[in-house]
Amino acid sequence: MTSVGLVTPQAMHFAEPLPLRSGAQLRDYTLAYETYGTLNAARDNAVLVCHALNASHHVAGRHADGAVGWWDNLVGPGKPLDTERFFVIGVNNPGSCFGSTGPTSPNPDAPGQPYGADFPVVTVEDWVDAQARLVERLGIDRLAAVIGGSLGGMQALAWTIRHPARVRHCLAIATAPSLSAQNIAFNEVARRAIVTDPDFHDGHYLQRGAVPKRGLRVARMLGHITYLSDDVMDAKFGRNLRNGEPVYSTQAIDFQIESYLRHQADKFAEYFDANTYLLITRALDYFDPARDAGGSLARAFEPARGNRFLVVSFTTDWRFAPERSREIVKALVDNRIAVSYAEIEAPHGHDAFLLDDARYHALLRATFDRIAAEMAA
Amino acid sequence: MTSVGLVTPQAMHFAEPLPLRSGAQLRDYTLAYETYGTLNAARDNAVLVCHALNASHHVAGRHADGAVGWWDNLVGPGKPLDTERFFVIGVNNPGSCFGSTGPTSPNPDAPGQPYGADFPVVTVEDWVDAQARLVERLGIDRLAAVIGGSLGGMQALAWTIRHPARVRHCLAIATAPSLSAQNIAFNEVARRAIVTDPDFHDGHYLQRGAVPKRGLRVARMLGHITYLSDDVMDAKFGRNLRNGEPVYSTQAIDFQIESYLRHQADKFAEYFDANTYLLITRALDYFDPARDAGGSLARAFEPARGNRFLVVSFTTDWRFAPERSREIVKALVDNRIAVSYAEIEAPHGHDAFLLDDARYHALLRATFDRIAAEMAA
Repeated sequence: MTSVGLVTPQAMHFAEPLPLRSGAQLRDYTLAYETYGTLNAARDNAVLVCHALNASHHVAGRHADGAVGWWDNLVGPGKPLDTERFFVIGVNNPGSCFGSTGPTSPNPDAPGQPYGADFPVVTVEDWVDAQARLVERLGIDRLAAVIGGSLGGMQALAWTIRHPARVRHCLAIATAPSLSAQNIAFNEVARRAIVTDPDFHDGHYLQRGAVPKRGLRVARMLGHITYLSDDVMDAKFGRNLRNGEPVYSTQAIDFQIESYLRHQADKFAEYFDANTYLLITRALDYFDPARDAGGSLARAFEPARGNRFLVVSFTTDWRFAPERSREIVKALVDNRIAVSYAEIEAPHGHDAFLLDDARYHALLRATFDRIAAEMAA
Repeated sequence: MTSVGLVTPQAMHFAEPLPLRSGAQLRDYTLAYETYGTLNAARDNAVLVCHALNASHHVAGRHADGAVGWWDNLVGPGKPLDTERFFVIGVNNPGSCFGSTGPTSPNPDAPGQPYGADFPVVTVEDWVDAQARLVERLGIDRLAAVIGGSLGGMQALAWTIRHPARVRHCLAIATAPSLSAQNIAFNEVARRAIVTDPDFHDGHYLQRGAVPKRGLRVARMLGHITYLSDDVMDAKFGRNLRNGEPVYSTQAIDFQIESYLRHQADKFAEYFDANTYLLITRALDYFDPARDAGGSLARAFEPARGNRFLVVSFTTDWRFAPERSREIVKALVDNRIAVSYAEIEAPHGHDAFLLDDARYHALLRATFDRIAAEMAA
């Protein structure tokens, strides 16, 4: 198995406004994206990969600066999502901070200023609509599949509700049909840490030459805890002390886990935009297709009766626990929609969807093999 | 069942220094405490109640300002811990902020200044030693029992390891023999939120007329999430919106759970000392009797062979899960120590230990009945 090699991000501009769920609109916007593999003559081998909170369009291969795509273990020549057979698209969602129009982009209503806190609230549904326009522009009437994990899985699900005729298969991994109160609560703590950082300046920190790094660090530390299982944290760090013996300090690092979290937090605060963090956690909070269908998740999936699904969860994922995936499966089964469900026994918690667990990748490989066979038929 | 009624906190000063585990010492100190009921002639009916993170010596009854004790549902005339039979002692631990010597007290080494960040790091063992001195001064050679939940349960356990001859029964509720990496990680996020608040001023905020309320609020919100079960949060708040419809904002309150957490956080930041929060979370982190016994929890409890134990856990407590209580039980059984263990099916998560679940309170009542019967024998 090799990598897709050096890749260069592309950008596509959309002059027509994007109407948003909130009632506002994005006046015009650019999407950063990457593609891997070749679109076949029938134009039926395209797979869209949707990203989660802090990822981007850079799914596979490496950039000139050496940065490797976030799902490079899955996507490439000979890999489970095989770029010798599929044309794979990664796209950065609007509101993000990796090249698509977002809070750090110029605000057309305030010349010379970035959007900052004035960037409109975007939802999973808005993202999917933006992605659908990109796919259309790429000359693809119907995707072979849409795939995503976590927040990306929510987008994959939303495709089958909003644009069911434009996609065949949906692969929804480590996701949920909505956030629980606890999930929302964790997001809210992260947001409060950012918003109450004096360097936040009501979201217009860029104009002040400031970055609310303290808040971003706290948000990232907290997020990180929810991505890992209790068990894997115990296995990796346990109660190990950095110096073998306690130093008895309230502020110095004593336990290895503290050192790890602070390091992750420092890295994150250097590159991630605070307004984007607020927007993306809100998109998570607001996703709730059942609510749109009078409280019935089964009714929400009625439009998806022509689609086929793979739903995957991981046993130690306590952020989006297997029972949340089973809610999705039940709603699909209630519609007599073809769904395969796998609950993978993996120790890594929510992060497992990014790792190359053998059973998990074998399952994805077999699924994409089947999708490819359908195309050839 | 009635209340113990109006109670007045008392204070006892200790002129002899308290040697601390860190190697430092507390030069002299005052302990705030309360007692309920009457010490009998044999002086064998005393029960010590140990408090957790944000509680105090005010266990039962009410103060002149109306404040009700934190375990008033358990302690009082005719209640499970019956003050008609037992002499109950509540004591505020040094380092806390409710009357005992702590970071807001005058620093003897810096006349005119409070301790602030210079208050020494205190451990569960240090607290137990301080409590033992108070108990001695009250003329009690041996406690009938020591009881505590959460961090209070750790103190109850430590009594049987450090002062086993001075206590008969240990009731350790919703506790653990040490924090997991995940537990430490949550504490570390809370501490970072406090320490990086610009109003923290390296822990000497009082001299600056400041209070790091932003950090305290984040710490409290986070703590609150870990005290409640996912299920009870869903039952209480679910995805309920404050205005029935989403307002689509990254900063305004939209979900009820957000409103609840912000309210709790605001209340907490008004009364809790930030340095105390750091000290108490550190005491939690450092508690690890197995480490002191070469890594064996069973060996750690060897001194406790003359004690009797009740260990209680709650099924939905994910902060200190039942499996952590079972580690304690196993270590006791390995020593052939008499232990009763109950895993109470309760929906409320870690907070269950403070509530009056019928089965839980019946169990405590029966246990104290037995302890009282032993005294009479």
